[in-house]
Amino acid sequence: MVIRYPNGKLYQSAPKLESTQEPTEHSTVAKEAKKRAISYSNRGKSLEDDLNETNMFYLQRKMANIHKKPVPIQIVKVDYPARSAAVIKEAYFRTPSTTDYNGVWNGYYIDFEAKETDNKTSFPLKNIHPHQMTHMESVTNQRGIAFFIIRFSSLNRNFVMSYNDVALAFQKMHEGGRKSIPLTVFEQQAIEINEGYLPRLDYLDAVKKLIAIGNVCESEEK
Amino acid sequence: MVIRYPNGKLYQSAPKLESTQEPTEHSTVAKEAKKRAISYSNRGKSLEDDLNETNMFYLQRKMANIHKKPVPIQIVKVDYPARSAAVIKEAYFRTPSTTDYNGVWNGYYIDFEAKETDNKTSFPLKNIHPHQMTHMESVTNQRGIAFFIIRFSSLNRNFVMSYNDVALAFQKMHEGGRKSIPLTVFEQQAIEINEGYLPRLDYLDAVKKLIAIGNVCESEEK
Repeated sequence: MVIRYPNGKLYQSAPKLESTQEPTEHSTVAKEAKKRAISYSNRGKSLEDDLNETNMFYLQRKMANIHKKPVPIQIVKVDYPARSAAVIKEAYFRTPSTTDYNGVWNGYYIDFEAKETDNKTSFPLKNIHPHQMTHMESVTNQRGIAFFIIRFSSLNRNFVMSYNDVALAFQKMHEGGRKSIPLTVFEQQAIEINEGYLPRLDYLDAVKKLIAIGNVCESEEK
Repeated sequence: MVIRYPNGKLYQSAPKLESTQEPTEHSTVAKEAKKRAISYSNRGKSLEDDLNETNMFYLQRKMANIHKKPVPIQIVKVDYPARSAAVIKEAYFRTPSTTDYNGVWNGYYIDFEAKETDNKTSFPLKNIHPHQMTHMESVTNQRGIAFFIIRFSSLNRNFVMSYNDVALAFQKMHEGGRKSIPLTVFEQQAIEINEGYLPRLDYLDAVKKLIAIGNVCESEEK
């Protein structure tokens, strides 16, 4: 069961400094913590926050209509106090059957999942759930545009990789290949997005490029 | 604040029979209750149930990938008992900013809202929230296909009406016209769906017809 915080974000424990271990230049843990601190001060926000801001920007500028789906909840008990809002008193997180984001842009159905990794050299495929791949395969068959937005948090780099390329990596893994996608593959096959002010993460510009090089589904043939 | 039951359905109170009032042929309340009972035994399920079944059918037959969005919840308090699933202990229903259903079919972005009315002669426009119209206008501008599925529960009739036609009714209302869409207008401008076994409500067949008569957005020009 994935545990999410009230803001809908996945719970991730902060890097821990052992209290008996003073941060020194030679301490890997300390270095890691320092780097993360710098990285966070540069970015300030999670990938989800950046995408929500970006989607709001697209919506207000009439550039696209793309939303994050609410987290699915199984509600067990609700109180209805007189003259005030209903209060959910017992509920559980459910596993989603789709990806987190979808919407429409310029006649295209857009569908994606956003993932962050602390890894500096590759993206572990275990971060992607089987139901997400199944869903994206179905979307691709319906000529929607399915992709991943992957952030290498430690490197402060963001990539848009098509579902097709991720599916290929899974296929290789099942044939005995590696269990992650190397950063070099992202650099070659994915489109890098540089963070900006408005929008924070212009991923639709990257999607345009994926369409231009024919690295997404056959939507163009419509 | 809309109150929803744990199953995600809107709360609707059952028709009440006054305990002091015996159902007779002359009792309007009793007649109403009887009619509803007959109607429910014919149908058995709510519009939402029928649409969920239909969407599952489309998904399994690889005909479309369309889902109901989860109800948005503001989570306030979560307990994390050791070795068991996180329990939400306090949360509130939030007003959605989009429609309830979206997805992809044959390269088209599909977006709709489902509404039921007990009214026998017209559909009251007050059943549609402003945020739904705003959202659908934006979807239409992005060349998505936006529509309503409206069930006249008492008549056991279902219609697919394009966003454009509903927007026109709102425009007329704002100019001093009527506050509902007459059944006769549905019969003329909307596409009626007959309930079936599999799928329960073949609304995509109706959408095809709307596209064929040019009563949806300009998606075909893509």
